[in-house]
Amino acid sequence: MTTSAATTSAALLVRTPGAGFERATIARRAPREHDVRIDIRFAGICHSDIHQVRQEWGSSRFPMVPGHEIAGVVTAVGSGVSRYRVGDRVGVGCFVDSCRACEPCLAGEQQYCQRGMVLTYNGRDQDGETTYGGYSQQIVVDENYVVRIPEGIDFAAAAPLLCAGITVYSPLRRWQAGPGRRVAIVGLGGLGHMGVRIAHALGAEVTVLSQSLAKEKDGLRLGADHFHATSDESTFTTLRGSFDLILNTVSAPLPLDAYLGLLRLDGALVNVGVPSEPSSLNLLSLIVGRRTLTGSNIGGIRETQEMLDFCGEHQLGAEVEVIGADEVGAAYDRVVRSDVRFRFVIDVATLDQA
Amino acid sequence: MTTSAATTSAALLVRTPGAGFERATIARRAPREHDVRIDIRFAGICHSDIHQVRQEWGSSRFPMVPGHEIAGVVTAVGSGVSRYRVGDRVGVGCFVDSCRACEPCLAGEQQYCQRGMVLTYNGRDQDGETTYGGYSQQIVVDENYVVRIPEGIDFAAAAPLLCAGITVYSPLRRWQAGPGRRVAIVGLGGLGHMGVRIAHALGAEVTVLSQSLAKEKDGLRLGADHFHATSDESTFTTLRGSFDLILNTVSAPLPLDAYLGLLRLDGALVNVGVPSEPSSLNLLSLIVGRRTLTGSNIGGIRETQEMLDFCGEHQLGAEVEVIGADEVGAAYDRVVRSDVRFRFVIDVATLDQA
Repeated sequence: MTTSAATTSAALLVRTPGAGFERATIARRAPREHDVRIDIRFAGICHSDIHQVRQEWGSSRFPMVPGHEIAGVVTAVGSGVSRYRVGDRVGVGCFVDSCRACEPCLAGEQQYCQRGMVLTYNGRDQDGETTYGGYSQQIVVDENYVVRIPEGIDFAAAAPLLCAGITVYSPLRRWQAGPGRRVAIVGLGGLGHMGVRIAHALGAEVTVLSQSLAKEKDGLRLGADHFHATSDESTFTTLRGSFDLILNTVSAPLPLDAYLGLLRLDGALVNVGVPSEPSSLNLLSLIVGRRTLTGSNIGGIRETQEMLDFCGEHQLGAEVEVIGADEVGAAYDRVVRSDVRFRFVIDVATLDQA
Repeated sequence: MTTSAATTSAALLVRTPGAGFERATIARRAPREHDVRIDIRFAGICHSDIHQVRQEWGSSRFPMVPGHEIAGVVTAVGSGVSRYRVGDRVGVGCFVDSCRACEPCLAGEQQYCQRGMVLTYNGRDQDGETTYGGYSQQIVVDENYVVRIPEGIDFAAAAPLLCAGITVYSPLRRWQAGPGRRVAIVGLGGLGHMGVRIAHALGAEVTVLSQSLAKEKDGLRLGADHFHATSDESTFTTLRGSFDLILNTVSAPLPLDAYLGLLRLDGALVNVGVPSEPSSLNLLSLIVGRRTLTGSNIGGIRETQEMLDFCGEHQLGAEVEVIGADEVGAAYDRVVRSDVRFRFVIDVATLDQA
């Protein structure tokens, strides 16, 4: 087995802002001492992929190969690799490197690296090369930034855990979702549906707060105990002072004071969605119940592994719609319309088809 | 000793919105089974007194006798009183009763009473009577809502601890101000100067963030290690990512994103001042460093006693300007101009003088 050669990989690439996806061949580096080469099986579509491709965040690099929800199999390892072997089922999430020296990195919180983590795509690696992500058939990543996918979660269901899963798992653990705690999940999309599954598996009493009751059946099936429509104003009086934790997974700006009013004493509203506009807030909403407004950004490598192990133990995969390489553009439009139950994943084997 | 008689007390009273203070005689109830009667020695002037007298919060009741920073001596006790004896040095803070049955009350967090605490003045007690506060010579309060003032803190220096002191002590303890922790205090007024003293005594490294450097000498003398002007924009770049905790004691609206940028990973910005306008905030400021924005409202009776004991042990009184009963109106104007070092207290004995 040759591990030292650079390879090429089929990929879906966006050449310029506003252009569609095209099939292309990209280079992947030869595995270095601590690298593993991964044959990608499935890559999830995260809403942030759409923002980046459409240059809505002002930080896009082109050409771009998106994708940071990656599940696949190790096909080669560098000479110094100790954690993985050929054939291992592995995943890669939102970042593939970090400075490894700052306080957050040393604490295993690479997602808060003070020099900035190296994003899996649309980033710049230590050599100054633009990174290409998971909408491709291969990727080469340092073993320290790779996680193991447990048996019992298939690749398609596992891929979204690498971003959507850890994004909700980390704050649910940090803010003690568990038995005796009342947790609300705002929004039932890619993140929200995993929030419901994980919070339920952690033992919390789970309420979904969704725009309408359209997804009520889904929510209850996924493990929610209650389901309320936020378009119904009485929700905010009925549930006043109810929750220990509200996890907001939507990016649209929320009326923060109304949501804070749903918290009990010392409750926390955690945001993982990023609205494009500033939010308005009356600080008295925080003072009267000693409430907390906070945020959370994915998770570190150790916690991502912990999340995958937890999901393996509880048989919690994402609910996905599998699509082919030619359907990504249409899928983007459906994600923007919230018309997906609950995450699209690309079967990258379809990149081989004409 | 007669404990059963109702009494009258000299007081400073505002009869109607916009009227000045006038000397008046008010009734105080006969001590009930669990009441103590207190001869007030000094009453602090809190900025909220001014808001209430001037009807700036829309919740004022007239006539009004303000004052919720009360220090004095027990002169009579009801038959069932066990905690205090005649001659004891005691204090009363922002509330004199609460429902005693809700979860926060049972947890000793009466300030978050779900039925609403009975405010020391401008409140309505269990009999439906309007409460009158500390700008008077006597008050009658249930012993469970009275705290003990340690020897070694004189009455004038103790009075402001009952609101300003506990307002800063509670969040400093809750958010672990202590050795190895970097704490910023925003504003060096009545609350801020006690924040500096208490945070320093707790062992934290203390920075004052003040509008200008005008109070730098005071800040350093009170125990601050560093002092920065927030009018100097470079402060926000120099101190970026510096603090574990920022305690904001000012009521003027802050540029929250700029202050949140001063926090380290997992740092907290705690607000105890209440701006009259909503604040604007980019939620990304919370997400990128998993930062927390929160608030805090005074403290419960047990924690207020703990704060007084701590201040007694460390000889931490407030720095005050003692004034007479006729100087309160002028003092209000000076408080509004931030022209006080650092708290006015009224010597209520002067109510006897012509």
